[in-house]
Amino acid sequence: MNKAAEIVPNGQRIPNGMLEDNYPRNMWWVAAHSREVMTKPMARWLLETPVVLYRTEDGAPAAIYDRCPHRWAPLSEGHVCGDKIVCPYHGMEFDTAGNCTKTPTQKMMPKTAQIPAFTVKEAGAFIWIWMGDQDAIDCEPPDVAYQTDLGWSFLDGYYEVGANWVLIRENVLDLTHIAFLHKNTFKQDDWITAPDSFLDGETVTYEQEFDLAPLSPLFCAGMGLPEDKPIKRKQVGRMPALSISFSDWIVHDPAPEDGARSDFIMRGCHIVTPAQRGKTHYFWGAAFDVPTLSDDVAEKTKASIIAAFDEDKHLLEIMQKQIEDDPRGMDYLEVTLGADGAGIFVRQILNKKLAAEGRKLSGGRT
Amino acid sequence: MNKAAEIVPNGQRIPNGMLEDNYPRNMWWVAAHSREVMTKPMARWLLETPVVLYRTEDGAPAAIYDRCPHRWAPLSEGHVCGDKIVCPYHGMEFDTAGNCTKTPTQKMMPKTAQIPAFTVKEAGAFIWIWMGDQDAIDCEPPDVAYQTDLGWSFLDGYYEVGANWVLIRENVLDLTHIAFLHKNTFKQDDWITAPDSFLDGETVTYEQEFDLAPLSPLFCAGMGLPEDKPIKRKQVGRMPALSISFSDWIVHDPAPEDGARSDFIMRGCHIVTPAQRGKTHYFWGAAFDVPTLSDDVAEKTKASIIAAFDEDKHLLEIMQKQIEDDPRGMDYLEVTLGADGAGIFVRQILNKKLAAEGRKLSGGRT
Amino acid sequence: MNKAAEIVPNGQRIPNGMLEDNYPRNMWWVAAHSREVMTKPMARWLLETPVVLYRTEDGAPAAIYDRCPHRWAPLSEGHVCGDKIVCPYHGMEFDTAGNCTKTPTQKMMPKTAQIPAFTVKEAGAFIWIWMGDQDAIDCEPPDVAYQTDLGWSFLDGYYEVGANWVLIRENVLDLTHIAFLHKNTFKQDDWITAPDSFLDGETVTYEQEFDLAPLSPLFCAGMGLPEDKPIKRKQVGRMPALSISFSDWIVHDPAPEDGARSDFIMRGCHIVTPAQRGKTHYFWGAAFDVPTLSDDVAEKTKASIIAAFDEDKHLLEIMQKQIEDDPRGMDYLEVTLGADGAGIFVRQILNKKLAAEGRKLSGGRT
Repeated sequence: MNKAAEIVPNGQRIPNGMLEDNYPRNMWWVAAHSREVMTKPMARWLLETPVVLYRTEDGAPAAIYDRCPHRWAPLSEGHVCGDKIVCPYHGMEFDTAGNCTKTPTQKMMPKTAQIPAFTVKEAGAFIWIWMGDQDAIDCEPPDVAYQTDLGWSFLDGYYEVGANWVLIRENVLDLTHIAFLHKNTFKQDDWITAPDSFLDGETVTYEQEFDLAPLSPLFCAGMGLPEDKPIKRKQVGRMPALSISFSDWIVHDPAPEDGARSDFIMRGCHIVTPAQRGKTHYFWGAAFDVPTLSDDVAEKTKASIIAAFDEDKHLLEIMQKQIEDDPRGMDYLEVTLGADGAGIFVRQILNKKLAAEGRKLSGGRT
Repeated sequence: MNKAAEIVPNGQRIPNGMLEDNYPRNMWWVAAHSREVMTKPMARWLLETPVVLYRTEDGAPAAIYDRCPHRWAPLSEGHVCGDKIVCPYHGMEFDTAGNCTKTPTQKMMPKTAQIPAFTVKEAGAFIWIWMGDQDAIDCEPPDVAYQTDLGWSFLDGYYEVGANWVLIRENVLDLTHIAFLHKNTFKQDDWITAPDSFLDGETVTYEQEFDLAPLSPLFCAGMGLPEDKPIKRKQVGRMPALSISFSDWIVHDPAPEDGARSDFIMRGCHIVTPAQRGKTHYFWGAAFDVPTLSDDVAEKTKASIIAAFDEDKHLLEIMQKQIEDDPRGMDYLEVTLGADGAGIFVRQILNKKLAAEGRKLSGGRT
Repeated sequence: MNKAAEIVPNGQRIPNGMLEDNYPRNMWWVAAHSREVMTKPMARWLLETPVVLYRTEDGAPAAIYDRCPHRWAPLSEGHVCGDKIVCPYHGMEFDTAGNCTKTPTQKMMPKTAQIPAFTVKEAGAFIWIWMGDQDAIDCEPPDVAYQTDLGWSFLDGYYEVGANWVLIRENVLDLTHIAFLHKNTFKQDDWITAPDSFLDGETVTYEQEFDLAPLSPLFCAGMGLPEDKPIKRKQVGRMPALSISFSDWIVHDPAPEDGARSDFIMRGCHIVTPAQRGKTHYFWGAAFDVPTLSDDVAEKTKASIIAAFDEDKHLLEIMQKQIEDDPRGMDYLEVTLGADGAGIFVRQILNKKLAAEGRKLSGGRT
């Protein structure tokens, strides 16, 4: 029997910052799905900052700080007029660079009437945002061209998850949990050994090959495969940036029907954006390398994926809440296994990026 | 494009204390509408203090601290017996001065059994309370005799607003927001220039005259005017104390029907009392200088006013919540316009009154 | 009129720690009613610690810290397999002593994979837990054999109360509140003098005899007495440990019907276990020293007791919330009466036990 009075067991301590502001600023995060952002302004918390997202009347996306510099009204309650957003309270107008262009009650506009503005770019199915130093933008958002490629069929969905983004990142980079947490949904019970994982710059990858076995029923319909047919499977994961990762299910059918395809890819996509403390926007995608899916297959596949991801959301939210409420919080050592390789690389990248911004995780609450 | 990494724009910093205890104690605040306080005790938070309000059996209003000195039970759960209030837990009785007059389980009453008591006065339609030093009371509550004057018709209502009282005070002292926030309710689109504003001691006033234009439909029925008739209008605001302000709509009809009145006043009344942190009791009034209003007109006018004030409540609550949740909080400079004149005087009076009590706004969270 | 500006009245200050962690660790608390704990794991906060309670397949109760040492998943979401509990996330298995016995994804198990485990014992109708130093266990849980004695009929119930455990303890050790708080339920209006109270080691007792008077209708049916029959009554209370106390209603019927019993006991039982800050598990029992109660009597008695205890819960929760929300909090002196004798002994025992653990109440918030 352990001494519970000293409740901290042995183990290592590599904090993931799940109770604090562990969000690097100088990188691209996803602000929204493209279809969410319209001329009608939308309020969204991103990296603990209130942001208003909208499109000008010519369709260009824009993102500025959601607080009027006059009396702090949320601009997201206002409306867009041409290429300006109009404050709901006293009618001041601002352009997409955050400059005040009109003050209804007076002719002289104060020079100081200016709002922080953020660079946004539309790429793939999403609108990306750079929340950090606007002069430090040194790259394009990650390549997600397949999302709008006519050769692919892209299903997607959104969750607000009550957990820090790193918990989701660690979840999707160690899929050995599929055999346990998702045993009734994925039903892929052979994923119980650790993949090889690699770090190259800020890109994390893992790879693993499996013997002949039936494919998870979640993806059979999308590939036109019977649920009990043994196939060869390769799992390849890739995180090109902390905000997004892919999990490819690369399937080879060694005995295809006459004239049928024998090779398929299902590309999972996991996009996370910190919202407020302990809350994360989670945009998921699942794409098949086929030009079309029947409505029936798309609907059934989406419903099955949601059933499985509901299991992740449920567990991660209990984890976050329990650790927030436990006075012990982060002061509890972790045991790390071989299957955590990719997740540990995430923590290393995270710490490096924060250090580059002159920041450091406290390992506790801030 | 501004540098968002340095999100604080230029501007001045005159904190209004909206995230902290910014409530002067040595002044009259409104505790309740007269009709709310009955012999059955009522719990109400006032200035972050739990208070029990009640009337003794002879009808006199009383207010004491809502915590029994014995085991801290809320007296508001008890009952009034004669001129005493009886604790719900063990039956101890207290008079309106907070002195214990009976202890059921023993004959010797501890001398220390005493509760803080507050001076209350009934004036106009309200019960006023002095929460500060009871020996420092040096004035009467503001004159609101018109509220019970038979020559006036007084409509009123109550909101608990999830925002600091100063946000409401600033809202009602800069009515140029009517043309924007209330464009679908007030429909008074000519109020887009700043009034003249004045400070005299602790009284703030503003004045403004308007050219011939239709009056807001909110007030036409109460004055018996058609909605499209051009009239002359003078807007006069007056805040005799931080807790109450008036906004008079002084209307002159240059072409009255035969034998009809040509001059009318609608006196808006805005009473705010801090409740708990970020929560304010808001008692509003709207009075016409006519002896009676038909039920129909009263009901319609009240509904229209509520529709407009709902717009204020909605916006102010988002403002408060967003600023509470934003790590930047008060650390964001404001731009002040000419139309903020009266509101700036409020902040000056507030800071002066706090200084007189040996207090000072921190400008952040406390 | 008191000076409200100095709102703290006179009185003494013996903090009960109701706003802080005032839970001694080295003692037996009740974790759960026996019937609640099954093979399916159950999550429960005990002393601000997340604990998973379960039975192994042979029926033995077990309690370990509800956090996997790997990636901190709640084990309460997993399942029991034989005498092991299996983590829901990646399938690691642990025995009841908290040692990891299986890691699905690798053969080498980290030595550090260990969870704090707590000693539990089943006694009476409950499962008891020792959350402190597991080597310091020096006694058995309190004797509650009557709860499962065939000569007694035991009714019970559970509340989660939004108040610190000491408030409940003080409530049940000063039953003079029955005449006031429960005047419409207990209807026992003669309990308005203080009993004699005694302290012996860590056991508190009180005693009091009453003249002929009708018994509270709550207990008449259980004893087969008419509600208006005058009986002699002795009230004896006993708290053998901070976690549990009894209140015996010892009844003597001086004029029994022919052949009827003339002596009865109703033993109230009040078990409190701190859950999270300001939240307490409250297990109550009411037992009659008769082998059986008809379903009708049991149901009616239970409903009446719940109606009365609802009154306590309601009041204590307002007390806790009001004191949490009041900036004054604990900084308000109390008046203590003779009837508080037993409750004051509780505070003395509490402070002594905390001191033995090297702890001390701050008297405020922590």
